[in-house]
Amino acid sequence: MRILIVNPNATASMTEKIAAAARSVARPGTEIIASNPADGPKSIQGFHDVALCLPGLLREIARHPDADAVVIACFDDTGLDAARCAVDVPVIGIGEAAFHAASFLSCKFSVITTLGRSVPGIEANLVRYGLSARCARVRATEIPVLALERDDPKVLKRISDEIGRAIDEDHAEAIVLGCAGMAELMNRLSSEFGLPVIDGVACAVAFAEALSALGLKTSKIGGYAAPQD
Amino acid sequence: MRILIVNPNATASMTEKIAAAARSVARPGTEIIASNPADGPKSIQGFHDVALCLPGLLREIARHPDADAVVIACFDDTGLDAARCAVDVPVIGIGEAAFHAASFLSCKFSVITTLGRSVPGIEANLVRYGLSARCARVRATEIPVLALERDDPKVLKRISDEIGRAIDEDHAEAIVLGCAGMAELMNRLSSEFGLPVIDGVACAVAFAEALSALGLKTSKIGGYAAPQD
Amino acid sequence: MRILIVNPNATASMTEKIAAAARSVARPGTEIIASNPADGPKSIQGFHDVALCLPGLLREIARHPDADAVVIACFDDTGLDAARCAVDVPVIGIGEAAFHAASFLSCKFSVITTLGRSVPGIEANLVRYGLSARCARVRATEIPVLALERDDPKVLKRISDEIGRAIDEDHAEAIVLGCAGMAELMNRLSSEFGLPVIDGVACAVAFAEALSALGLKTSKIGGYAAPQD
Amino acid sequence: MRILIVNPNATASMTEKIAAAARSVARPGTEIIASNPADGPKSIQGFHDVALCLPGLLREIARHPDADAVVIACFDDTGLDAARCAVDVPVIGIGEAAFHAASFLSCKFSVITTLGRSVPGIEANLVRYGLSARCARVRATEIPVLALERDDPKVLKRISDEIGRAIDEDHAEAIVLGCAGMAELMNRLSSEFGLPVIDGVACAVAFAEALSALGLKTSKIGGYAAPQD
Amino acid sequence: MRILIVNPNATASMTEKIAAAARSVARPGTEIIASNPADGPKSIQGFHDVALCLPGLLREIARHPDADAVVIACFDDTGLDAARCAVDVPVIGIGEAAFHAASFLSCKFSVITTLGRSVPGIEANLVRYGLSARCARVRATEIPVLALERDDPKVLKRISDEIGRAIDEDHAEAIVLGCAGMAELMNRLSSEFGLPVIDGVACAVAFAEALSALGLKTSKIGGYAAPQD
Amino acid sequence: MRILIVNPNATASMTEKIAAAARSVARPGTEIIASNPADGPKSIQGFHDVALCLPGLLREIARHPDADAVVIACFDDTGLDAARCAVDVPVIGIGEAAFHAASFLSCKFSVITTLGRSVPGIEANLVRYGLSARCARVRATEIPVLALERDDPKVLKRISDEIGRAIDEDHAEAIVLGCAGMAELMNRLSSEFGLPVIDGVACAVAFAEALSALGLKTSKIGGYAAPQD
Repeated sequence: MRILIVNPNATASMTEKIAAAARSVARPGTEIIASNPADGPKSIQGFHDVALCLPGLLREIARHPDADAVVIACFDDTGLDAARCAVDVPVIGIGEAAFHAASFLSCKFSVITTLGRSVPGIEANLVRYGLSARCARVRATEIPVLALERDDPKVLKRISDEIGRAIDEDHAEAIVLGCAGMAELMNRLSSEFGLPVIDGVACAVAFAEALSALGLKTSKIGGYAAPQD
Repeated sequence: MRILIVNPNATASMTEKIAAAARSVARPGTEIIASNPADGPKSIQGFHDVALCLPGLLREIARHPDADAVVIACFDDTGLDAARCAVDVPVIGIGEAAFHAASFLSCKFSVITTLGRSVPGIEANLVRYGLSARCARVRATEIPVLALERDDPKVLKRISDEIGRAIDEDHAEAIVLGCAGMAELMNRLSSEFGLPVIDGVACAVAFAEALSALGLKTSKIGGYAAPQD
Repeated sequence: MRILIVNPNATASMTEKIAAAARSVARPGTEIIASNPADGPKSIQGFHDVALCLPGLLREIARHPDADAVVIACFDDTGLDAARCAVDVPVIGIGEAAFHAASFLSCKFSVITTLGRSVPGIEANLVRYGLSARCARVRATEIPVLALERDDPKVLKRISDEIGRAIDEDHAEAIVLGCAGMAELMNRLSSEFGLPVIDGVACAVAFAEALSALGLKTSKIGGYAAPQD
Repeated sequence: MRILIVNPNATASMTEKIAAAARSVARPGTEIIASNPADGPKSIQGFHDVALCLPGLLREIARHPDADAVVIACFDDTGLDAARCAVDVPVIGIGEAAFHAASFLSCKFSVITTLGRSVPGIEANLVRYGLSARCARVRATEIPVLALERDDPKVLKRISDEIGRAIDEDHAEAIVLGCAGMAELMNRLSSEFGLPVIDGVACAVAFAEALSALGLKTSKIGGYAAPQD
Repeated sequence: MRILIVNPNATASMTEKIAAAARSVARPGTEIIASNPADGPKSIQGFHDVALCLPGLLREIARHPDADAVVIACFDDTGLDAARCAVDVPVIGIGEAAFHAASFLSCKFSVITTLGRSVPGIEANLVRYGLSARCARVRATEIPVLALERDDPKVLKRISDEIGRAIDEDHAEAIVLGCAGMAELMNRLSSEFGLPVIDGVACAVAFAEALSALGLKTSKIGGYAAPQD
Repeated sequence: MRILIVNPNATASMTEKIAAAARSVARPGTEIIASNPADGPKSIQGFHDVALCLPGLLREIARHPDADAVVIACFDDTGLDAARCAVDVPVIGIGEAAFHAASFLSCKFSVITTLGRSVPGIEANLVRYGLSARCARVRATEIPVLALERDDPKVLKRISDEIGRAIDEDHAEAIVLGCAGMAELMNRLSSEFGLPVIDGVACAVAFAEALSALGLKTSKIGGYAAPQD
């Protein structure tokens, strides 16, 4: 099975990190193809960045017509609806994958994301998916996306502190890590805090494999019908 | 006051029609500047078209930094969140303008739009805006957007029939015309059916004038903060 | 255009203040007619006051059959549904006007109102209008309505403090001032806090002008049908 | 125990009918005091009638300070919030009483009411009470309230037909009769259709007795605090 | 009238306490029959305990076919839906009874319950009943159910403290005591805090009497149809 | 990996059919262990059957402590919350699995289930999971569960007819087959109707494999904490 993972921003080092995270969880027979648009925003922080990277994202998807499933590796689930129009294989966003996984494992979860400016978009997605009732709170650490690229103990401290607050104040039973750049932290923080700490890249790969293996496809009736020329 | 109306699709004849509708309702001192991207989808029918026209839409907005308000003239409110990040003047989508107007004038309204494939996006917007509780139903006529450009009695008949059904079956108290191309029909159909038939272009221009005249601006805290370079 | 603004309470000095605020934002050609019932509650603080002023409110509306639009100048939107039955021109409440304006300008807003006892009525309105999802929180300052009449620095301090908390704790991107008596503060506080601080009187006048200029009317089908004798 | 039942409209014959229905279900020790305002609307059909009868309703309540509980005998629950401010004994509306009873007896209920113009107010109440999720549909028979006063087989036929449709189309498991004038029909229609057909007058009296016997009172903190002079 | 109260856990001393609370509020002619399963969980703290006591609960109900109404005396409303399938008399859970009572007496209530692990089940019930919009917050005292059996001043202190916080932080206008073992506290705490403090056992008995006296029965159409053999 | 699939009813032939369906989609390395309680209801049709099979279901789970994940093979997701308390591996219900899969593949889905009496339970689950907004309608075929065991062309015709109506009337973009006994139909009906027809058994197995392979576990904080002795 070939799974295409598109990082919608133009930072190739982040794509590599995401690809490594994906490969570390993929089934033996799964080939991970990771790509990102050649140009466009360097990171996606808010609605404006989302809008600018959409055509590049769709071009990357179009360049890989033999993919058996597509994963969109931005926690905003950038262009998810548009991508579903473009192909008939399953398309999974890492944000929604994490939300659905958290719903299988807990009564209530909190999301820890990067900047406050990204919170409204994530909240809007939760409402759209119908899962806002399961999310206790979306919390911002005010760590910029690209700072996650560096191995900085202060960054980890900020994330850990926020998880602690989510448990104490939100009564969160699971934590969703709200950025593709946080993928490596899933296991370490799960152990530390004794509750599921969920990374969307891992979940999206696993769910994409699952749906594709079942032969399920994106509906081509209604909202996700193929675009007309 | 200068109001920029951007038609996000590349069909200049539709832009002209929208501009004419806007000018026919604008206040005496208002200058209407209408534009559309030079390339991109010819019409916006579903999520894929929405995604492809966003950079062009944002370029048109950036080309007009002296606008006192911006109207996005596609019923999907294409790129509304991104446009609000880009400027600090008010930005109004014609879809939301029509929904808010209908909320001021009726307990419950129905939307009459073009293709069934556009319905999920409109429904998602209504949920996002919080106004889905006020909308009885989004109805598709299955008339393609560009067919509205032609003066075809069959098209008008289909729209009228659907309005009749909305009144009978949905108990709609007002009708929102769900496409920029339907702007000319507002007064004619209001008289015929004896209830408000609401066109988003007219409402968006009027609300943009209203907010701009009050000196109100788009919030630059949180979700609509200016993009960082 | 003639816009009737009814202050549903019997405090004429407040009516004058509201009229002045309205005139300061009205278009050149708009005549503002402000009135209040001769008797009834002196201020509207909670459900009981709302109920007692309704017949007087409807009488004031009936006395001005030539109004092109009606604004109800109480933040509870006192008698809004009944007033819409009584006339066929647009009727706008200052509460709803402010909520809709805030929805055009921000992802999420908080309301700063007077007494805690008024909060449930405002919350119920937000649910009714469908906009509760956009409102982060309704905050009470515990300043009585009539105290706003006096120019008291302590009063302004309390309002400012509460706006600060709304930004910090609620992540509010805009502030709605929840009382007709707060109209003068809109511009001053917008500058001070660097986010939209929205007054309902100004918004209601502007939206009433907008809808009336478009020739839109209150639906007379269904819930707002004219009362039968 | 003394229960005051206020019919908010000025039709004394309807008050008598309601009083008889109330007495037929009251406990042995309960005294039913029924009253209506001397003037005001003859029936309550829509928001305008509701508004006009509120001061009269509150006067009737004030005239009976020794009541142990108050029932508001209009299916719109006219003035319920205001009445709760006025007294500290329990106040029950016949609409809400019927909705709560139906929630105890069925998964889902439909409401059969009089005119279509009353439907939006009833729907708004259901949303306000939080019980709209339990209501499959509010159906109008288009029988005017006062026509229920006459013993007309056509009227009963229309109600029966609508109950049949509620069972077939809405999968309603219980029926709420949406008008004080329908009280006599509860038992007859329950037997005929083999499902609970619920009258609000009976339920409101029984719940008022229940809450009063338990010594429970209306909260005087927050929204229902006593009005200040 | 005979009302069967089933305590779904196997702690007979709690059953006796509940029976005493029920008898202290029952009408003169009401016979209270209290029972509990002979085996099963000693207390019900979370979903696992709920599941294990269901067959025992249904057996107790089946053993008393002459009951005129059934009360389920666990705040989780354990097995409420199943019990309604088993009989055609009214079945009331003490949780739902308290929520509905609080809705009649206040705009907004908070729940004070035992362990944090019980909160998600209570929240799920509130959503199911449609009353979550009326509940400001479900608060846990972290007092185990059986500790309520002992007369411990520290326990009362913890409950009192939490009520104080519910008033201050949640703006709760009424308090629901979220455990059958708290029944004795209703009057004492109502006086102390000056707002309704509501016990579900008392409310459930009173509502069961009310519905049964009216001749109302559980619907046997749809979800509560009798089980087929 | 060992996945335990528990059929909560006592019909072994159905367990075998479910096991076969599960094995046909499981990964090469996955061992499917299928079991059902020795006694209890023969099929689960409504709330009463659900309640009676819970202890047996929990016993089957306790008998297999070495399972890496648990699937509950009843479309009501019988005992899902209780099962999650009992173990720390992932537990997936076939109902929720199908709903989540449909949410990944379509904007809106309809459910086709067996008896009308099962509809309220399924609707309650959808509300609980937060996915009711994605479900257009739950439709009953009135085919009893055990009739699905027999190979009857009339049964298939009834299901096909209902799918046709879901597409036409509900604008469903995907179909969820609402019974464990319908598993074989997924591929056949997907092809016939040209949209995803989703079987919960297949999805639950695939999602259980996915979560287990990622090392994710059920949260043991809050609602799913292990039961205390």
